[in-house]
Amino acid sequence: MTDEADQLHWDREEMRRRGHQAIDWVVDYLASIEQRPVQSRVEPGDVAASLPLHPPATGESFDDVMADLDQVVLPGITHWQHPSWFAFFNSNTSGPSMVADIISSGLAVQGMLWQTSPACTEVETRMMDWLVEMLGLPDSFLSTGDGGGVIQDTASSATLCALIAAREQVSDFAVDRDGVQGKMTVYASSEAHSSVEKAVRIAGLGSDQFRHVDVDENLGIDPAALDRAIEADKAAGCMPTMVIATIGTTATTAVDPVAAIARVCQKHSVWLHVDAAHSGTAALVPEMRWMQQGLEDADSYCFNPHKWMFVGFDCDAFWVRDRKALIKALSVLPEYLRNEASESGQVIDYRDWHIPLGRRFRALKLWFVIRNYGVDGLRRLIAEHLQWAEWFEQQVESDPRWQLTHKRTVNLICMAHIDGDEATDRVAQQLNEQGQMSVTVTTVQGKRILRVCIGGTQTRKTHVEAAWQRIAKVGAAARS
Amino acid sequence: MTDEADQLHWDREEMRRRGHQAIDWVVDYLASIEQRPVQSRVEPGDVAASLPLHPPATGESFDDVMADLDQVVLPGITHWQHPSWFAFFNSNTSGPSMVADIISSGLAVQGMLWQTSPACTEVETRMMDWLVEMLGLPDSFLSTGDGGGVIQDTASSATLCALIAAREQVSDFAVDRDGVQGKMTVYASSEAHSSVEKAVRIAGLGSDQFRHVDVDENLGIDPAALDRAIEADKAAGCMPTMVIATIGTTATTAVDPVAAIARVCQKHSVWLHVDAAHSGTAALVPEMRWMQQGLEDADSYCFNPHKWMFVGFDCDAFWVRDRKALIKALSVLPEYLRNEASESGQVIDYRDWHIPLGRRFRALKLWFVIRNYGVDGLRRLIAEHLQWAEWFEQQVESDPRWQLTHKRTVNLICMAHIDGDEATDRVAQQLNEQGQMSVTVTTVQGKRILRVCIGGTQTRKTHVEAAWQRIAKVGAAARS
Repeated sequence: MTDEADQLHWDREEMRRRGHQAIDWVVDYLASIEQRPVQSRVEPGDVAASLPLHPPATGESFDDVMADLDQVVLPGITHWQHPSWFAFFNSNTSGPSMVADIISSGLAVQGMLWQTSPACTEVETRMMDWLVEMLGLPDSFLSTGDGGGVIQDTASSATLCALIAAREQVSDFAVDRDGVQGKMTVYASSEAHSSVEKAVRIAGLGSDQFRHVDVDENLGIDPAALDRAIEADKAAGCMPTMVIATIGTTATTAVDPVAAIARVCQKHSVWLHVDAAHSGTAALVPEMRWMQQGLEDADSYCFNPHKWMFVGFDCDAFWVRDRKALIKALSVLPEYLRNEASESGQVIDYRDWHIPLGRRFRALKLWFVIRNYGVDGLRRLIAEHLQWAEWFEQQVESDPRWQLTHKRTVNLICMAHIDGDEATDRVAQQLNEQGQMSVTVTTVQGKRILRVCIGGTQTRKTHVEAAWQRIAKVGAAARS
Repeated sequence: MTDEADQLHWDREEMRRRGHQAIDWVVDYLASIEQRPVQSRVEPGDVAASLPLHPPATGESFDDVMADLDQVVLPGITHWQHPSWFAFFNSNTSGPSMVADIISSGLAVQGMLWQTSPACTEVETRMMDWLVEMLGLPDSFLSTGDGGGVIQDTASSATLCALIAAREQVSDFAVDRDGVQGKMTVYASSEAHSSVEKAVRIAGLGSDQFRHVDVDENLGIDPAALDRAIEADKAAGCMPTMVIATIGTTATTAVDPVAAIARVCQKHSVWLHVDAAHSGTAALVPEMRWMQQGLEDADSYCFNPHKWMFVGFDCDAFWVRDRKALIKALSVLPEYLRNEASESGQVIDYRDWHIPLGRRFRALKLWFVIRNYGVDGLRRLIAEHLQWAEWFEQQVESDPRWQLTHKRTVNLICMAHIDGDEATDRVAQQLNEQGQMSVTVTTVQGKRILRVCIGGTQTRKTHVEAAWQRIAKVGAAARS
């Protein structure tokens, strides 16, 4: 008698054939992407309306499933891999990353413990050490000392983990055992990412304990204002817990002065977490490492290779200077996970470094990307994006209809139409509706700005030039 | 002048060729898996020793990268997809899931908002509704009413999100704004997963506020003991916040009596979260739905399609009865994420349903798997696993050297050697060292048990039979 499993699962040749078909679909999709509007044009409910209300009782033809990618899915896709994607930040992938992800899906191991797949842990540890070297990060983050790195899903989770560790470090009671007591305060600039407030809330501190610190004219934290805020909270009986410095804020890529902030944190024994989610990749270019000055005094740091470093989501790289603090805060050891290797103390069990227990083999993506491009190749790609951004900035400066609203630090240009907010909004809306490129508008200190981020894997100089032509043209019309 | 990007990124044909190569590697790997020891035999540091200490300055040949999969990675892999994997629980994948993951890697969209790729959100919502129907879950979880489902990475994160929502619901102050105040207590059986204590800690309640409730002889929560524990805490001025009932505990797949627990929760207005991470898949088989009795009175529920339902990691399916409670607890809206669609209230923005902001298109995996197998195909596969588990159980019962230690509820057999803990440990160790199969031993109520979980995608009846032969043989030798 044949097992049901033999009848129902694909055999090897079907897996091979369907796998190749999927690869071909992706390659053809990327080849056709420029013929599609960057942003999806569906209305709420349109995609749902083309999906059956009920699941199929019996298996469908897989060709029908694949056909629905074109008919149902693609109209509802906003194409983040489009070469004229200049919206938000990038969420890049690349060939070597996709190949690594296929291998990871096929191996399908659970790397929660060293023991449950040693390679999943040891490759990750080495990749995190490689990144320290590649980006010129402080040696204190290396796993060969007291520090260490781990892949998190997102910077949001990294911030939360940093806060969980910070809570234990700054308090004279055990938060892990007793819970949050009193007012444990957290500090970041008003330009910091929303995930900071979310972490403050999740960790049970409460949004009211989150302090927005005043910024200077470049939208960086004013260290004196930070010092005053911490002093005031201490005087009021609060327990200052963590400061988040941002290298490259979401709206404008403003850079907080890490070294000066670190001095304030040391003075008050407060945990310093540095979030460089998007802009951290720029440090591949040595000239950009000024942004990281003072990082050797930070307690934790993260950036997202899945944004600008050609590694597919999810891959946030997170380091701590004292791994024991993180592990102590997050480790709960049940009987069924006990094993000789863990108890020997010779291995890392990454389950104790983040929120989830299970984890897939994400380090393969880093390994494949770094080896394929080499450090120099990655540096050249990022340097090229920076050059294109500089060129773009010059065009904006030379056009009397536009003004640069914020100092460019990396690959993001922030601009506004001289006729004001309404004109800026109208230009962005028209560009997005035309569909050949995509931009984001946001409000900073009461003013509408149009953001152009230049960093896509598929983007070439011609796309950057075309983007400027379109903006200039629509901007000229907006004036009249 | 050619862009650096043109020189450094793969062109379409290289992507196609390397993609096919990766698929072939995975197919060949799965074909060769039975020739490998299930558990990796490397020692701590072995894999790291074969990785360069420093990243390559320039790009390497990709053939060399692929070759290292065989030489460096595979020796360090514990093969979770091995057909004789009977350890922990399964962490399955399948052909259609892998294909969907390739598409998801290629589209590489960020589904944080409806607007940033409507299909990513709307397919997910429909899949979560399909699962409600497929598993016979309560209609209260459907998105068409006040409830709704979302994909989380793991059950650990689902538990944490449930707790964040519960904190707001039970308190007469705003935890999100003011932080945790006083003692907010959480209840689960001593057999509940370690992620419960981890969530209690992360959410700032503190481990001391986590109550292990007494269990009955089947290791299910004693509802009367739960009631007493809550009463006592209320009398002591604590704020009972959440109860976690488990359908299928990690050690023995014990099932808590959900209906009776729900009555206690309703009496005390405490949030009830039900965790069926592994065993929830069994509900594809209607005869197994007794486990879910009372679920209509739960506030939230999760199970992991990435364990037993042939969907690759990560895919935890999490539902709430009142989506507003979850969203209110987790939503922080910065200016740069504001958009018309969100403000219309007509769409779901899944970023407000979990910890991370970014999210990949994971619903494709569910869609492809459900359509490929059909509901009936999935049911037949799970029913077959249950039959094999029943057969295995009979063999254990008929062998005088072994005793079943716990009632079998789904596809896990718990057994002990009649010569005691040392013999049980020795058998497990020998089996794992022989390398032809993999099992887990753990301690429950002071006794060592050997666990055999039968649910792998690659597993066939012949593997189950061979596993029993091996256990019987080693068990016989252990006695002498």
